[in-house]
Amino acid sequence: MSPKITGELLRQLRQAMRNCKYFSEPIQAYIIPSGDAHQSEYIAPCDCRREFICGFNGSAGTAIVTEQHAAMWTDGRYFLQASQQMDNNWTLMKMGLKETPSQEDWLISVLPENSKVGVDPWIIAADQWKNMSKALISAGHSLVAVQDNLIDAVWTDRPERPSTQLRTLGLEYTGMSWQDKIVTLRAKMTERKISWFVATALDEIACTVKFSEIHYSLFTSATLLKSTMLFVDLKRLADPALRDHLQLGSPSKPELSIQTFPYESVYTELQAICAALGPKDKVWICDKASCALTQVIPKAHRTPIPYTPLCLSKAVKNATEIQGMKMAHIKDAVALCELFAWLEKEIPKGNVTEISAADKAEELRSQQKDFVGLSFPTISSVGPNGAIIHYRPLPETNRTLTMNEVYLIDSGAQYVDGTTDVTRTMHFGTPSAFEKECFTYVLKGHIAVSAAIFPNGTKGHLLDSFARAALWESGLDYLHGTGHGVGCFLNVHEGPCGISYKTFADEPLEAGMIVSDEPGYYEDGSFGIRLENVVLVVPAKPKYNYRNRGSLTFDPLTLVPIQIKMMNTELLTQKERDWVNEYHRKCREVIGAELERQGRKEALEWLIRETQPIV
Amino acid sequence: MSPKITGELLRQLRQAMRNCKYFSEPIQAYIIPSGDAHQSEYIAPCDCRREFICGFNGSAGTAIVTEQHAAMWTDGRYFLQASQQMDNNWTLMKMGLKETPSQEDWLISVLPENSKVGVDPWIIAADQWKNMSKALISAGHSLVAVQDNLIDAVWTDRPERPSTQLRTLGLEYTGMSWQDKIVTLRAKMTERKISWFVATALDEIACTVKFSEIHYSLFTSATLLKSTMLFVDLKRLADPALRDHLQLGSPSKPELSIQTFPYESVYTELQAICAALGPKDKVWICDKASCALTQVIPKAHRTPIPYTPLCLSKAVKNATEIQGMKMAHIKDAVALCELFAWLEKEIPKGNVTEISAADKAEELRSQQKDFVGLSFPTISSVGPNGAIIHYRPLPETNRTLTMNEVYLIDSGAQYVDGTTDVTRTMHFGTPSAFEKECFTYVLKGHIAVSAAIFPNGTKGHLLDSFARAALWESGLDYLHGTGHGVGCFLNVHEGPCGISYKTFADEPLEAGMIVSDEPGYYEDGSFGIRLENVVLVVPAKPKYNYRNRGSLTFDPLTLVPIQIKMMNTELLTQKERDWVNEYHRKCREVIGAELERQGRKEALEWLIRETQPIV
Repeated sequence: MSPKITGELLRQLRQAMRNCKYFSEPIQAYIIPSGDAHQSEYIAPCDCRREFICGFNGSAGTAIVTEQHAAMWTDGRYFLQASQQMDNNWTLMKMGLKETPSQEDWLISVLPENSKVGVDPWIIAADQWKNMSKALISAGHSLVAVQDNLIDAVWTDRPERPSTQLRTLGLEYTGMSWQDKIVTLRAKMTERKISWFVATALDEIACTVKFSEIHYSLFTSATLLKSTMLFVDLKRLADPALRDHLQLGSPSKPELSIQTFPYESVYTELQAICAALGPKDKVWICDKASCALTQVIPKAHRTPIPYTPLCLSKAVKNATEIQGMKMAHIKDAVALCELFAWLEKEIPKGNVTEISAADKAEELRSQQKDFVGLSFPTISSVGPNGAIIHYRPLPETNRTLTMNEVYLIDSGAQYVDGTTDVTRTMHFGTPSAFEKECFTYVLKGHIAVSAAIFPNGTKGHLLDSFARAALWESGLDYLHGTGHGVGCFLNVHEGPCGISYKTFADEPLEAGMIVSDEPGYYEDGSFGIRLENVVLVVPAKPKYNYRNRGSLTFDPLTLVPIQIKMMNTELLTQKERDWVNEYHRKCREVIGAELERQGRKEALEWLIRETQPIV
Repeated sequence: MSPKITGELLRQLRQAMRNCKYFSEPIQAYIIPSGDAHQSEYIAPCDCRREFICGFNGSAGTAIVTEQHAAMWTDGRYFLQASQQMDNNWTLMKMGLKETPSQEDWLISVLPENSKVGVDPWIIAADQWKNMSKALISAGHSLVAVQDNLIDAVWTDRPERPSTQLRTLGLEYTGMSWQDKIVTLRAKMTERKISWFVATALDEIACTVKFSEIHYSLFTSATLLKSTMLFVDLKRLADPALRDHLQLGSPSKPELSIQTFPYESVYTELQAICAALGPKDKVWICDKASCALTQVIPKAHRTPIPYTPLCLSKAVKNATEIQGMKMAHIKDAVALCELFAWLEKEIPKGNVTEISAADKAEELRSQQKDFVGLSFPTISSVGPNGAIIHYRPLPETNRTLTMNEVYLIDSGAQYVDGTTDVTRTMHFGTPSAFEKECFTYVLKGHIAVSAAIFPNGTKGHLLDSFARAALWESGLDYLHGTGHGVGCFLNVHEGPCGISYKTFADEPLEAGMIVSDEPGYYEDGSFGIRLENVVLVVPAKPKYNYRNRGSLTFDPLTLVPIQIKMMNTELLTQKERDWVNEYHRKCREVIGAELERQGRKEALEWLIRETQPIV
């Protein structure tokens, strides 16, 4: 991976920072967050401004350019990747390390007195704006909203915004009509005396009005209001079936009618709505919505919330969605069993690379029913590339799979009935004792979370240390969270639940939520290990029931064998061995039946061999 | 325990709430927090206003009285006790349960429109004021500072404020002079460009200027500023040795001189200081300091911090303090071994009660060198009283210790060299299978924390679930945190570190910090189990050292046998049995030697018998 050359780009950006065409006075620093106007994780190419300016293309990171400096903050998943993708004009700020300053502290340390720091208010979230602004003001500086995006000003070949048609989903996939979802939402608004609700997250809108934007859930641009107003690129609503689905023009119930508006008009329409508010009217908006849209709502009416009711209800899957997720995971496991059987045969020939293995995985998944696309770019990594946590193989980094190195593949797909995300780490020759030892600690952590029983109402962050205890005991660790929420044919990473040492405001786990369980270990320059299942939160029935609170545990939806060759089974307790054997029994039973039904004999043989009980 | 009759008191308080002598307009609600003007946990009798109005005398709780309602919020440790101490004028609000409204939400639900809610600004912390005020304003109400305390107005026989002499401590106990502590503090202020620092927490001041207020660390009233100004009841500085210690009038270095002022003058002196501030001057004050004092500092200069540098440096004990804490725990263990040997002999006679056992424990502790007093009221509880987490035996609740019920004693002392806090749960006859089962789960949790190895920089809340995993697996739990910081001859409960599922802003654990490890299980109406050691954070040396971060673990300072009779050893793993045996070996070695030295033969025999290895 060679770094992007950014000297000339930075020179142009700094020129724009001094150019009074964009603001009344020059700015001394410019912040480039990674999101789009909807705080999406996976964004359209035209929104990849942080990547454009610094070269780093991971999913999370913020760049800041001053007259003298250029720095980029990202988290532990991306330290290695970012250091390889950025040239030496850039300083990598490793978030989570004690010595790394926050963006605010760093700005205050490098800025001259009374500086102005600019940012695009449509891209920075309201809560981030608030914190940053407060810190800068307290140090004598100010944060200013720059309406023209300065990256766009220097980005001569910026791609067009995509404008694909939207897709609708029937009740057989969603289990609940969009009309019922809006009725439920309104009941919650009434309960909290909320007059209007501004929805800006694309997956929340997609989930509610029941059309889905897959392929990284990007591109839709919409805002949902009480009466219900939808702001969207109107070209994307041309399909009559879609118009019919949304009952545009001919609602069965008038109070459930949807009015559509051009995307760009959201600012002025919301202004008009706010101007007409009564003195007691309250408007809900997520505190992670864009600063620009948030500030349209006068402070007296604005009620920012960390998670919207759509986000919360989306996280708890209904019976139809759970059934769909199970089906999607069975199909996904079929594809992976085939992949691994194929790899075992092909690797000795020396022709399989990270990219061709990823392509093969996609090809096999695409043969499964209702396949729509990948749920995120496949991480297919050999040896040292495995230590780059969110690695994505590129022609210049592409390694060949061999019998001598550990192979890590983290991949997933969108099927119409559900979303998958699975990581397996394998060795096709003989792993070293250290590789096995680390793999076994990771497995112990994975099992500790997956088999945990915990009270109803427990937040996911309380389970994070279970995943680390075995690694910690040997002085090891991994610098990422243990799990994230998973959408049902929606974002592969979704809130508001998760399993992480970061005590963000995660919501308590409840039955029907779906999260990933993915501890890892990364030896820089050598190998990476990660073991990831998607798991469903289900009720547990332990011996006692303290204060009638009820208990929960996890049921793995992912059913792909975990390579026994990578385990040092002597390090496992009897309980852990039993867990592995029971998991493999279930893989064999459920996936074996499907492989048989699909007539995929080689994969079936591979599955049977890989699921022999350990003793 | 019979509840306090509060009908007449509430009538008088509500009359005061309508009395325009205290404010321009009547208030519709009055908040009564539990603290004093220094947010102390253990407070002088004259400050026990919340207890006075509702009868509940636990260490944490907030009462709110409206024209129609009276409600009191407390946490899981106190649900049972509060329900027994309050009459039916009061509604108990059980914090931490899903169905319990926050104080703000409750007020908003019961208040008429445009209500005024009053509170004493010297008693409510600035951060609480801010949150409460914001919530009330958003619902059309307001929070008003009532300068005259309305409880004092109806409290006819309110005790006097105590005025005992202050005590000084030599370098042999503190390991660092107060002058050096102030130099260190100033260096931190300079680094952060802070002009003034207002210290209000009594233990922080006591720790810094090195006089100690024990017996629940109350009574001192002081504020420490840069130049250094001390606000205190001047009668308490009469002792020439104390004046000498503080170098009053004759400082060896002028820049380290301390000026003393009458306690009451802090408001006007701070006002004068703030009036003279330059435009860039910043003033540090803890965000938990009183609202009244905080608001003296103009917003432009005020820099609230969650933990002050004094709080942070106090938490990391120096070598002298660690040695002192070790000595204090040895003496404390001697007293407890004697107590348990005595109880074993006396209980069959039928004359030992909760109160007499607590008195005996105090008597035995008082025989040890440098004993000063108890570090908190002894929790001595038999059978169902043990389920009241912060029970304190009273004549009307006092039960006799028998061979048939579980006995729980949570107690500690202040010695000049250190502070102790230990809980043991014992059975002097034959415990039931269920009692043993629960005890064993609690023991497993205790060991899981005590033996945990974790990376440098880990926050205590990440360890909390280790203490619960075994209980959770059986559907059990306990409704309190797992551990708190412990001061060295200071508060027995101190910040900023701890081990709790509540993710308050705890600071990362580091070597030299001292916390408690005290999981429990409480079967209401039947028995209580808790197992508490005070443990020192020490470096660990596991096999690997990921990213050179280093690892930590705990070393128990408490060395009192854990009753083997209460264990179901079949439920323990081999690792856990090894831990118990190694712990008991150390108890026998260290405490045995001291018992021998002190010639306490019966206790020594008891110790030797109780520390036999389990197999």
